[in-house]
Amino acid sequence: MSNDNRASEIADRLRERIVTMRAGEKLPGVRNLSAEFQASAATVSAALSELSAFGLVRAEPGRGTFVSGRERLPEPDFSWQSQALAGARVDADRAARLGGYGTAEHIPLSWGYLAPELLPNEELHRIGSRAAKSGRSWMMTPHAGSPELRRILASEYRADPNDVLVVSGGQQGLVFTMRTLAEPGSTVITESPSYPGAILAAQSAGLTLASVPADADGIRVDRLADELERTRARVIYLQPSYANPTGAVLSTERRKQVLELAARHGVFVIEDDWARHLDIDGRPPAALFDDDPDGHVVSIFTLSKPASPGLRLGAIVARGPAGERLRASRTADDLCVAPLMQEIACGLLTSSAWPRHLKRLRTELATRRDTLVSAIRAIAPEIRIPSVPRGGLHLWARLPQGSDTREICAAAYTAGVLVGDGRHFFTDEPPAPFLRFSYGAATEAQIIEGVRRLDDILEQ
Amino acid sequence: MSNDNRASEIADRLRERIVTMRAGEKLPGVRNLSAEFQASAATVSAALSELSAFGLVRAEPGRGTFVSGRERLPEPDFSWQSQALAGARVDADRAARLGGYGTAEHIPLSWGYLAPELLPNEELHRIGSRAAKSGRSWMMTPHAGSPELRRILASEYRADPNDVLVVSGGQQGLVFTMRTLAEPGSTVITESPSYPGAILAAQSAGLTLASVPADADGIRVDRLADELERTRARVIYLQPSYANPTGAVLSTERRKQVLELAARHGVFVIEDDWARHLDIDGRPPAALFDDDPDGHVVSIFTLSKPASPGLRLGAIVARGPAGERLRASRTADDLCVAPLMQEIACGLLTSSAWPRHLKRLRTELATRRDTLVSAIRAIAPEIRIPSVPRGGLHLWARLPQGSDTREICAAAYTAGVLVGDGRHFFTDEPPAPFLRFSYGAATEAQIIEGVRRLDDILEQ
Repeated sequence: MSNDNRASEIADRLRERIVTMRAGEKLPGVRNLSAEFQASAATVSAALSELSAFGLVRAEPGRGTFVSGRERLPEPDFSWQSQALAGARVDADRAARLGGYGTAEHIPLSWGYLAPELLPNEELHRIGSRAAKSGRSWMMTPHAGSPELRRILASEYRADPNDVLVVSGGQQGLVFTMRTLAEPGSTVITESPSYPGAILAAQSAGLTLASVPADADGIRVDRLADELERTRARVIYLQPSYANPTGAVLSTERRKQVLELAARHGVFVIEDDWARHLDIDGRPPAALFDDDPDGHVVSIFTLSKPASPGLRLGAIVARGPAGERLRASRTADDLCVAPLMQEIACGLLTSSAWPRHLKRLRTELATRRDTLVSAIRAIAPEIRIPSVPRGGLHLWARLPQGSDTREICAAAYTAGVLVGDGRHFFTDEPPAPFLRFSYGAATEAQIIEGVRRLDDILEQ
Repeated sequence: MSNDNRASEIADRLRERIVTMRAGEKLPGVRNLSAEFQASAATVSAALSELSAFGLVRAEPGRGTFVSGRERLPEPDFSWQSQALAGARVDADRAARLGGYGTAEHIPLSWGYLAPELLPNEELHRIGSRAAKSGRSWMMTPHAGSPELRRILASEYRADPNDVLVVSGGQQGLVFTMRTLAEPGSTVITESPSYPGAILAAQSAGLTLASVPADADGIRVDRLADELERTRARVIYLQPSYANPTGAVLSTERRKQVLELAARHGVFVIEDDWARHLDIDGRPPAALFDDDPDGHVVSIFTLSKPASPGLRLGAIVARGPAGERLRASRTADDLCVAPLMQEIACGLLTSSAWPRHLKRLRTELATRRDTLVSAIRAIAPEIRIPSVPRGGLHLWARLPQGSDTREICAAAYTAGVLVGDGRHFFTDEPPAPFLRFSYGAATEAQIIEGVRRLDDILEQ
């Protein structure tokens, strides 16, 4: 290796160190650095000069080399901003919890993603590392996504590849769909309880939320019909399979009725199909999308749930002028999803590792879900389970009337357990105190220990 | 390799083939596949069974194996959608052009990104492939971005790491900032001509655009003052350094005046700092952000311009309650930027390859810009160059009065040349016919040939 390269290599290592240092902090002397890197003083000096040329350090002759700092700005005055900013649309408290994981020390009984050991890690590393070496990953794809990925995703539905718009995960798909299909100020109807990310998405899009109760068979269609009449809503948001938080699966009968209502009222149904691959006991019914030729249903697909929380990749599947509108408007928001992530999704979905992963996942989720149900029944029977979910990642549980879920979740947090406060799943006051448990992110041992600690809190 | 693994490997290869086939198409027979994959008939049959189990193919005994197709849906009726959809906010024609590259056969004289050979390819492949093997890349980072990346990006500005919000590229940063800081229906003031992506972003956010003329020193501050009075706008959008399309750099004097106006009127200035690293002749002035303690300036940073169009990574840098609002609202739109992309950005920005890349880029862009200027002056002197840009990727050129840029750009497209129609850079009628040239995406030979073909068109 030439001295030049060696100096640059040392500069690299020092750069990494400098970002963790404070402005004005002193670097070790040349002699110490020579010893550390086993390089000549000249090479170390060359490395320091390189850093100095980019303004990262400043040499003071006779004193040493210091991390550069910019001169401080005067004390800020932000008072004008309070006047300039209008009221916040998004509920910051709810937003702060979305996707939140707590610390590494917490038992994650409320995280809607898979634990690291449940990911197809080997394949992600292999496919990812291969994709990063492809030139295609570093240029752009068409705005709607790479043709290959759109073809693969279309095959998940009764869809044409042209109906598919690739996005950076389900949440982005959701808010973008709401924003594009509904006018600010108009109403979107959700089931109640509903996914907090959907509540936030509606807020972000400037929409008003109306909620309709759901039971074990999904949204109550009679009440939905009333609400459509009353609100003149143009958009319904549903999770027909393994709804978060209740785990409900919309019954075959009600699926038909929802599509009939959509046709009668001329509304869009956003089908949040997040748990498509997270079935445990038997397969879920076909997507609503597959039974709707006339473009009422817009489906949101995600890979971050079944594959990896870091694989920020999803799709909006939509037919007709609405699909065109979505694909055309998308450019204003983001030119395309990172082609590297698209390449990785293609590689994963066409690999034989994918069905193997899903099979293993099914078994693992069944075990963890059963452990959670048994633990609650054995250790904390005061927590009632209205219905055991047949898929998805969540268990919805009811506490004795009068319980304060805010206090209980805070106490759980202090005791090292993260559990979801049911309040966040309602747009208004909850009808009863609920907790949402997740069984995808914690090990069996953690689940049992988490329920034990929660029981201690409930008995206080 | 066990037979099981071998069968799965063959299934993988067939999967890749199947996505390119039509439903109902026949796969080669077992004997042919045995020969092709040099595997026993039993192994090939196992591979086909695997595909069949996942519904990808269907075996018809005695006839062969066929690609599965779903039964066709009835003829769709989308007429109801026209009633359900409100007027489009985003101008689809302008959106279709944003980031558009034409085909591989076109000479790209209008693409605002770097050509493949100008990217730091070796580093992207090396850093990307290493990052894909890290477990961190497959879980989530905090919503605002990884602490390390926020620290690195803060050091580009006089900012605190807490002021930084990592986003998926500049366009996403731009539209998200407009949407969060301005109420739908309110006015955002831009310079004229301005970046079409900003015009689309404003449309997407439901904002009204008011434009103020700019000259070689950037936006005209006297006119800006009038427009602030007239419109009561709360947001100004600017590209202070190497504005797209004109290449103008806002003068030091005017920078001060813009900040004074912002303070007097209590408005936000969105500083689109896209060309920060694309200086050619001398360094640009410090970012507006660095001279504004009170949080008027919100800067948008991007890596997709100086590093790679596929590196969809940028940042919003904002102080005070506005910064908090932006970071809190972000969760509703997207839980976090793909951690893999964040890891790659960290690796690239702290590598000694980064300053080396920027140095090489400066030289290459100078050569290509100079070639473009010389070619226009020598070959097509009827195209006037009001001012040679000292940085950025674009050259703004004026055609003889009466030229129809729509026709000229269409003829150029047919002749295999992509050039930007000046109309897209104005919100109203353009004051004169302009073309926008880009010199970052085409080789010197392509630039000369492109100008030659354009001259042929202009002389017709």
